[in-house]
Amino acid sequence: MLTITRLDQQDARLLIQGARQKADEIGVPMCIAIVDESGNLVAFERMDGGKITSVTIAQDKAFTAAAARKATHEYNEKCVPGSLVFGIHTAMGGRLCVVGGGLPVSVDGEVVGGIGLSSGTPDQDMACAQAGIDHFLKARG
Amino acid sequence: MLTITRLDQQDARLLIQGARQKADEIGVPMCIAIVDESGNLVAFERMDGGKITSVTIAQDKAFTAAAARKATHEYNEKCVPGSLVFGIHTAMGGRLCVVGGGLPVSVDGEVVGGIGLSSGTPDQDMACAQAGIDHFLKARG
Amino acid sequence: MLTITRLDQQDARLLIQGARQKADEIGVPMCIAIVDESGNLVAFERMDGGKITSVTIAQDKAFTAAAARKATHEYNEKCVPGSLVFGIHTAMGGRLCVVGGGLPVSVDGEVVGGIGLSSGTPDQDMACAQAGIDHFLKARG
Amino acid sequence: MLTITRLDQQDARLLIQGARQKADEIGVPMCIAIVDESGNLVAFERMDGGKITSVTIAQDKAFTAAAARKATHEYNEKCVPGSLVFGIHTAMGGRLCVVGGGLPVSVDGEVVGGIGLSSGTPDQDMACAQAGIDHFLKARG
Repeated sequence: MLTITRLDQQDARLLIQGARQKADEIGVPMCIAIVDESGNLVAFERMDGGKITSVTIAQDKAFTAAAARKATHEYNEKCVPGSLVFGIHTAMGGRLCVVGGGLPVSVDGEVVGGIGLSSGTPDQDMACAQAGIDHFLKARG
Repeated sequence: MLTITRLDQQDARLLIQGARQKADEIGVPMCIAIVDESGNLVAFERMDGGKITSVTIAQDKAFTAAAARKATHEYNEKCVPGSLVFGIHTAMGGRLCVVGGGLPVSVDGEVVGGIGLSSGTPDQDMACAQAGIDHFLKARG
Repeated sequence: MLTITRLDQQDARLLIQGARQKADEIGVPMCIAIVDESGNLVAFERMDGGKITSVTIAQDKAFTAAAARKATHEYNEKCVPGSLVFGIHTAMGGRLCVVGGGLPVSVDGEVVGGIGLSSGTPDQDMACAQAGIDHFLKARG
Repeated sequence: MLTITRLDQQDARLLIQGARQKADEIGVPMCIAIVDESGNLVAFERMDGGKITSVTIAQDKAFTAAAARKATHEYNEKCVPGSLVFGIHTAMGGRLCVVGGGLPVSVDGEVVGGIGLSSGTPDQDMACAQAGIDHFLKARG
């Protein structure tokens, strides 16, 4: 039997709060998705003005980051023609997302969930995702 | 009427055993999928710690290798923009997988099934898939 | 943060072993799928002669039982026209399966995974799924 | 290793020929699909005037009959609310088809493929599918 640590609803709120604050700061309304360590959705918020396509993309970024234990921008970097990783962006009907903006959430070196942001540029999405994690880790003390 | 040779459950176990031993050796818990010559799943094992995204990707690699009678890394090599093969990675909703780690399993020059590994780098996945085949062929004598 | 208990590969093997023994006993080769408490595949075996359609159905039964924490035959009972549950059999593109043969696997009152059997009649599938659980619980002592 | 007998292209033509003759006789242009014993398409013909929806349905009937080794009308009979089989009609995204008109093709007691007809009433589809099998078996002598 395995024992797994997984973020709960309170943790998810902290992650969203940090990401939302950063999104407000840069003036880009975002879709924010939080998944558990198995990739299943725990919480989601579409800020007023967030994009419709981002409803799906934010979830897929969070799913990918948690379920593959890897940031989506790291997959992006390797998913170039000629690399043996190329093609992974179409896996699972395209649900495996290699667009920047998805980060695994780790506690004590273990992936406990994932956060995915979408609606801005990938750089903006990544910054907000990181802000969510920073806020979460700081609140945990 | 055609007569087809297809791996059975015992063969599948040998393939998984060889792949698992290599995965243990390199310290990367893997998802291991074995399909028959028509691409249908015969056996699957997610080693403790194998990635969730790899549950699907390992199966898709095995499916592609058996059903197209070609290693996924061979497709990968040709699936570059400008090549007429490019785009095949989106076929079947992305189920046709061109990421390295899927190998056809052949006996007496005939494809009898496929093996797909996922959770490591493509090179690691390919090495474990090959180890599965080596173990299987050696056990057959 | 939540702490989750989840079956591991060794547990999955015990579940498959018990189900396979019963399938052998009644002379019906089966597809046997084991998933973790989040519904993700841990192990799968298509016994020689198991049906191709059952490759998917066994997995979907196991997924449903674990992810909804309910036996598929319990959903079946309530999934009749006029009941407010009716229609749930088409959820998730039909992945939510209400055909008998999927059981949640519980330890100490907590669902730790699911087992799904397919290839026989629903009664046969259910008997083999239960045999898998019995064998697993007995081996745990 | 398993040895499988599977219909070939010549067999498929005989099956289509018999089904087409019956369709001409009753004056209903049909879609006719032939799959191998694993459910993969071997041959397909849309007679002039065959329905577009039937392009998919004929294939799904043939797939179901071969891959589950059961006539689709037999599934239909048992797939009624309150039966433990109910819900199987939505499996595989609805690809598992319980509408009459799909028959397994057997030789020497072994399923070697499947035939699926669609465009008429289920009774007409079933009659044409059976006519295909009769013609095939007669031609084999």
